[in-house]
Amino acid sequence: MKLKILGTSSAFPTKDRNQTAGLFTYSGESFLFDCGEGTQRQIRIARENPQKITKIFISHWHGDHVLGLPGLLMSMAMNQRKTPLEIYGPKGTGKKIAAIMKAYEHEKLSYRLIINELSNIKLKTICETDKYKINALKLKHPIPCFGYSFEEKTRLRIDTNYLNSKGIPTQHIALKRLQRGKDVVIEGKKIKAKDATYARHGKKFAITIDTAYYTPIVELAKDADLFVCEATFSNKVKSSAEKGGHMTTKEAARLGKQAKVKHLVLTHFSQRYRSTKELQQEAKSVFKGKLTMAKDFMEIKI
Amino acid sequence: MKLKILGTSSAFPTKDRNQTAGLFTYSGESFLFDCGEGTQRQIRIARENPQKITKIFISHWHGDHVLGLPGLLMSMAMNQRKTPLEIYGPKGTGKKIAAIMKAYEHEKLSYRLIINELSNIKLKTICETDKYKINALKLKHPIPCFGYSFEEKTRLRIDTNYLNSKGIPTQHIALKRLQRGKDVVIEGKKIKAKDATYARHGKKFAITIDTAYYTPIVELAKDADLFVCEATFSNKVKSSAEKGGHMTTKEAARLGKQAKVKHLVLTHFSQRYRSTKELQQEAKSVFKGKLTMAKDFMEIKI
Repeated sequence: MKLKILGTSSAFPTKDRNQTAGLFTYSGESFLFDCGEGTQRQIRIARENPQKITKIFISHWHGDHVLGLPGLLMSMAMNQRKTPLEIYGPKGTGKKIAAIMKAYEHEKLSYRLIINELSNIKLKTICETDKYKINALKLKHPIPCFGYSFEEKTRLRIDTNYLNSKGIPTQHIALKRLQRGKDVVIEGKKIKAKDATYARHGKKFAITIDTAYYTPIVELAKDADLFVCEATFSNKVKSSAEKGGHMTTKEAARLGKQAKVKHLVLTHFSQRYRSTKELQQEAKSVFKGKLTMAKDFMEIKI
Repeated sequence: MKLKILGTSSAFPTKDRNQTAGLFTYSGESFLFDCGEGTQRQIRIARENPQKITKIFISHWHGDHVLGLPGLLMSMAMNQRKTPLEIYGPKGTGKKIAAIMKAYEHEKLSYRLIINELSNIKLKTICETDKYKINALKLKHPIPCFGYSFEEKTRLRIDTNYLNSKGIPTQHIALKRLQRGKDVVIEGKKIKAKDATYARHGKKFAITIDTAYYTPIVELAKDADLFVCEATFSNKVKSSAEKGGHMTTKEAARLGKQAKVKHLVLTHFSQRYRSTKELQQEAKSVFKGKLTMAKDFMEIKI
């Protein structure tokens, strides 16, 4: 499980920072969170494979978060993609994509686009499989904007020490049932799942880009192993942050602290900050855990 | 007069090549020729000022030539641009831009957009001032696509040697009329424009990106000081070039030779060519003048 940061700037791209995008990879699948202008090129420079992206999560329709979407969709088609692609985003996302692709005379794709539109929701699971679930929360921004969390499910693992101590083979077809929490009988011995297994807690990743300080985010990011959060401005220009529906470093750090996240990554910096040193100092004064200032092409293991 | 190359790739952006764009600067004004995805960032990296762009010339609506347009228009507005911006492009350009800007919820700009749509034309002047004229020619491509040429007007210059030899002052209000080709009287002496002036020929720049070999281009590029031409493929894959409505190196070189251009710059390379060495050799075998293989951020003086 890893996150490759592909862009860290808010509004304008700069020499060192592209517009927002993050590529999350889990078990062979990739999920793209936002797709600022130039994302397809960032993916190539990062030597990642865009065809492995199965889901794209759009926070909102301000250009700096979605300008790269049409180009990415076109390139996937030019490369003969067949795998369907799911897109999650605010209400209207389907119509917007259709209008843009029509303008670029690229309406027919080689693959199926599955659009999932989100409404004015509180924290809610929007996608679930055997292995994970993905939740969305509407944030606080001038236009409808969503934050997302990925939660790997807790899985039972076989306690081989326990089996060995009871003289039970550690390779047996019945162990699969045990791993699903069922008691089993192996070589005449009854084995209880609660004795012979232990839980391996799933990992959690949350991301909120473009939002003012908003306490429901604490629930979205609760106990996350990684929380990527916007911190567009220094605390010195709190009013600029409020005006644009953004957070300062200290507000983002406060959310990280309240949610007890294990690793806080700040991103989406205003172009006025060439260096993020000052921003980092501010955040550190509030959040005492592991803190990272995002940089383009940074890879974060979860 | 200079051209800053901002992108040299066809279809896909690569690590070293962005999608097509070229920024031509003349007498304080800048004209942008095509606007592939990421162009606004390329402009920043090149330390050019996007607000100096007064005209954008779009060749056609395939994404790799226009994906950067909405982001550039938005950024100009976010930076409070007031100067009107003219856009030249194929029929439908106005509707397409409106649809895209609406999808990105960015319909109101801080400046006026003046859209000039081109129809199925032969070589024709589409814009003229006292100093220059700009011509367009419909090219040979699967969708309507245009090439452009910029022609600086020939101007009369005062022959100060002549004035000195006749004892006439070289600073006088009447010299302005002389420069417009009118005979004048200074200090009682009649001076004929044809004796006291000489012509300084204006420079010419032509650009054709995305087209199959098409002989009317010779007229568009005739005697150009700089001719930027697509050469997507090597001569070895002539059929690929024909299929996509593109040129091979040798075809582009032949056009440069037939048009007797002074400097031929080839660009719009397929991603299959990491190096352009082989392409250059092919073109050299046909075009014997000054030949350059375009690179991102190359500056060409005209």
